[in-house]
Amino acid sequence: MADPKTPRTTVTRQRDRGRYDRDTINAIVDEALICHVGFSVNGQPYVIPTTHARVGDHLYIHGSVGSRMLKNMKQGIPVCVTITLLDGLVLARSAFHHSMNYRSAVILGVAQEVTGEDEKRSAFNALVNHVVPGRSADVRAADAQELKATSVLRLIIEEASAKVRRGPPIDAEEDYALTCWAGVLPLQLMAGHPIDDPRLEFGTPVPSAVATYRRQRPPSDID
Amino acid sequence: MADPKTPRTTVTRQRDRGRYDRDTINAIVDEALICHVGFSVNGQPYVIPTTHARVGDHLYIHGSVGSRMLKNMKQGIPVCVTITLLDGLVLARSAFHHSMNYRSAVILGVAQEVTGEDEKRSAFNALVNHVVPGRSADVRAADAQELKATSVLRLIIEEASAKVRRGPPIDAEEDYALTCWAGVLPLQLMAGHPIDDPRLEFGTPVPSAVATYRRQRPPSDID
Repeated sequence: MADPKTPRTTVTRQRDRGRYDRDTINAIVDEALICHVGFSVNGQPYVIPTTHARVGDHLYIHGSVGSRMLKNMKQGIPVCVTITLLDGLVLARSAFHHSMNYRSAVILGVAQEVTGEDEKRSAFNALVNHVVPGRSADVRAADAQELKATSVLRLIIEEASAKVRRGPPIDAEEDYALTCWAGVLPLQLMAGHPIDDPRLEFGTPVPSAVATYRRQRPPSDID
Repeated sequence: MADPKTPRTTVTRQRDRGRYDRDTINAIVDEALICHVGFSVNGQPYVIPTTHARVGDHLYIHGSVGSRMLKNMKQGIPVCVTITLLDGLVLARSAFHHSMNYRSAVILGVAQEVTGEDEKRSAFNALVNHVVPGRSADVRAADAQELKATSVLRLIIEEASAKVRRGPPIDAEEDYALTCWAGVLPLQLMAGHPIDDPRLEFGTPVPSAVATYRRQRPPSDID
């Protein structure tokens, strides 16, 4: 892709946290289950959470054709999609130096509606498989009516940046003499035990992708 | 507060998921560690993740006086603050009926800068205690220079709505005959083991609010 770092996506505060490489941005997009989509209507910004999936440089989001967000976005207005992963609480010795460890990505652009049926079906599968790998093969695919009832939008990941904080608190030098506890409390989105649908036939096995569910995290230290 | 339900905050899709009562909105705001702030500059929306704290009807956010987001917001532009809690994956028998269980809140308004030192200090404490209850009493409070270096903004929670999905998948009637597994995989942000700061004096005890950390969730079933 083109250089994702533009004046609009350049991190200006805590510049050392800014990342502009595609791998970092993609890893954040792929790990997160949801994104927050920002758009303005009549000067009022709205921020709406929704699911997403990435295929190469394309970020797909979808929803009902009746969705206010998608109806607005289809008109070709500028949008901002932000994806945030919270990795830990950074508990310093002073109130001022408290922080969080996180990885976030900000993508700017104009979304376009996917009209081709093949791309729409691929995006559908990607959206389901983004949540649970391989799930689309286990379930009934969308029929013609369901496809028609759904809008799929494509945003090209082109102008984007990531911001990453990790590691321990950074206290003011004189505060290291204070006796309070300081450190990092790691946080992670964890899956509990799968809950069978009330109408599930008794004994239906839980797929292993669900039973051992875990969002993929990069192998690097992120605490 | 005034009726938080306005045409701009009325849930139009899946209306049965819309909630407008203050308790529901407050519980979402209080449980979440971060919010996503939306604002527009020159027609381009931006969505930025940040921490927040609620005191009564006031939602506080803060950051460096150099923050682009806060500099823009201080000018009295319309903003949207969205808070999302992900509670589970809803895995249906058809791709189309896949969903997520979540609780989200959307707050619209115009933020104002907090200039009074007392309110600024209270907001500081609320922001730290929102993350770890009681933490502000254990750490060094902000000094005059740190207060000066920080902007605090107040948004009144007035025009707001929540959206909540919970429970099992809702499949098309004919799909209940399919044999694939269906149900809910609960998700929760969980804390790991606290990691001592590398410069912490050996043997400093971990405060119990950190050692037993858990975000407060409402007692109702949210799976």
